Order: sequence, then structure tokens, then C-alpha cells
Amino acid sequence: MSRKLQYFQFNGYAEAIRYMLHYGKLDFEDIRYKREDWPIKSVKDSLPFGQMPTYEEDGRTINQSMAIARYVGNKIGLVPSDPWEQAVLDAAVLNVYDFAKKLVDNLKDQDPEKKEENQKNIDETVEYYLTRFERELKAGNGHFGGKLSWADFIIVGLVETFNVYLGTDLHKNYPTIAALILKVNTLPGIKEYIASRPPYTK
Amino acid sequence: MSRKLQYFQFNGYAEAIRYMLHYGKLDFEDIRYKREDWPIKSVKDSLPFGQMPTYEEDGRTINQSMAIARYVGNKIGLVPSDPWEQAVLDAAVLNVYDFAKKLVDNLKDQDPEKKEENQKNIDETVEYYLTRFERELKAGNGHFGGKLSWADFIIVGLVETFNVYLGTDLHKNYPTIAALILKVNTLPGIKEYIASRPPYTK
Repeated sequence: MSRKLQYFQFNGYAEAIRYMLHYGKLDFEDIRYKREDWPIKSVKDSLPFGQMPTYEEDGRTINQSMAIARYVGNKIGLVPSDPWEQAVLDAAVLNVYDFAKKLVDNLKDQDPEKKEENQKNIDETVEYYLTRFERELKAGNGHFGGKLSWADFIIVGLVETFNVYLGTDLHKNYPTIAALILKVNTLPGIKEYIASRPPYTK
Repeated sequence: MSRKLQYFQFNGYAEAIRYMLHYGKLDFEDIRYKREDWPIKSVKDSLPFGQMPTYEEDGRTINQSMAIARYVGNKIGLVPSDPWEQAVLDAAVLNVYDFAKKLVDNLKDQDPEKKEENQKNIDETVEYYLTRFERELKAGNGHFGGKLSWADFIIVGLVETFNVYLGTDLHKNYPTIAALILKVNTLPGIKEYIASRPPYTK
């Protein structure tokens, strides 16, 4: 089976998918564009809605990182079979995406003259969401929904992205999130991938 | 089984779920708050991330409209069993949500002094997305993924919402989308629900 993942040379919305593909030992072509080269017209025009990541499998393509992550997660046993448990994880993933979206909005709306206010908005978003994620993970023995799932990969991939972007460890006051990041980072396949991947910069 | 759906007296992010519950003949308590009363502190404080809709089933609650819609859709046979087909629909739903988000951003960013430019932004968003949805639906015999699914309910619910909000029929130049709206609106259970529901206003 041929697989291709197309994204930037960045973690962002693709890293959770890369982690799962490596963890599941699924070979794939990890296509990465430099952000400074973007948009590359020929590539952008080929994307269904102009955006990456896209995932191709045996000539069929889907877009939307969340759809791709759920699909790959399902392939490697990271989506439970019970529909309610699936829905709980879907909601967790969507909440994490809301957190990411809110942070991106905070960064976009920055007024260069109001440094304190900008930082306050970011801090409030981080506290609002991470407090809730910490509580939910703690209630699930360190996982969304009680055991390792695709939702865990999503929060790890996105918290790590903002850590790179903001130059800090957002998870430092959230021990259960920190433990989950460490756990995912040291899973077989992922540990070796992290050791070999090119470094990410803001 | 007891079911509760909590949202505003508006279509918005809940109507696709209401449609599916009625179509599937699943009894539920359809709790609706007036938007002018919002936020109601006691309700808002009870929501996991301060937002509606929420869906409760036998005392268990989830948030996130997309997670709820997929769960209810699955219950009534509107989610296919094949994982790739599921992913194609997940991506379609996420693309429709992106369209809604983009339109909300267009409406939020309006400059009252630039009426023409505001309208142009809305028109461009509508054209960009609806052209692509029209094409995808046409290729699927009028449905995302080839047969009636939860993704069809999502596009109908959200296009109808912006029709109310913008006071126009966004789908008027898109015959396949128009046909899908008509089809969903006249399904058994939904037809009767629409005839009896309170009218929606901007």
C-alpha cells in the first residue's frame, strides 16, 4: 500500500499523524515543503481546498488533518469500537482544535503596541483550555477516555507546536499533560522518529 | 433512553442534529434558550467549554456539535462502516465547518464604512466553498460519498443557517445543493418537524 502525507517542514497539524504512522509502523512518504517557499502554485492548486495536510493512499486523497488523524488512528487500533467512547474522543479532539484556533487568533490579533495585553490574552487562553484538558486527562488515568487513543496524539502534537511557536513549555504547570507528552514521545517508533527528524523552528 | 439537546432557539450548529433525531424517530428533549437571554450564568457555567450545543444521553454529556452529529448519525445508519468512506465524510463535514467559520469571520470583520468590500468578501467565500461542495455532491449522485449520510445533514443545516442570517438563498446558483436541501427537508419525520418548529430569525 502506498501512502503519502503532504505538509510543511513543521509539526503543526501533521505531527500527530506522523507520530501515529511511525508508531503503527506504516511506511509513508513524508513530503515536506519549506514554509518560506509557500504558496507553491502548482501544489496549492492541486489541493481540494487549498490547504494541507493531505493524505494519499493508493491514489485516493483526503484533506483535513482531523479526518486523516482519525483514519490513521483507526487503522492502528487507536479508535475504540464503542460509539459513545468514539464520540467522547471526537469531542476531546475538537476541543483541542478550538484551543489551537483560539491561540492562532490571539497571535493574529496582536497589537504591537500592547505587549502586556497580547501576552495576557495568550495566557488566559492557555489557562482556560489546559486546565480543562489536565482535569479530563487526570480523570482518564492520563488519557482522554481512559486509554491511549488518537485524541492523546492530537493534544501532544498541538501543544508541542505552540511550544515551538511561543518558545516556551506551555505544559509546564500541567503534570498530566507533561506526562502524556513524555509517554507519546517515547513510544516505540516515535522515539526513533523524533531522534531523526529535522528540527522545527518558529 | 433519555436524551437532551441543549442549544439556542436557532438552527446554527444544532439543526443537523435535530433533523437526524427526528428522522431517526429518537425522542429527545429539545431545550432552546433565547439568544437575547444569553449568557445565562447557571447554564454557561455548567457547560464543559462554555459552549453549546451539548447532548446528554442517560446522564452522560458530550459537547461539540460535530461529535454529537456523528454520534447520532451513526445511531441511525448515516455513518458508513468502511473506514475510508468514513474519512471522506469526516473531511467533507470539516470542510463545511471551515466554510461556516470563514463566513462568521467575514461577518465579524466587517467595516461599516466599506459595504461593497464586506459583501465582496462574503460573496467570494460563498463561491469558493459552494462551487467545491456542488462539484463533490454532483460526483456523488447528490450526496457526499454517494448516498445519504450525516455529512449531507451538516451542509443542509449550515447553509440554511446562513440563509436566515444573510436573508438570502445562498444555494440558489447551486442546483445539487438546492436539491439536497429539498430532499432532507422532506424526509419523513423532518417534514413534520419543520412544519411545527418555531420560525428562525437573524
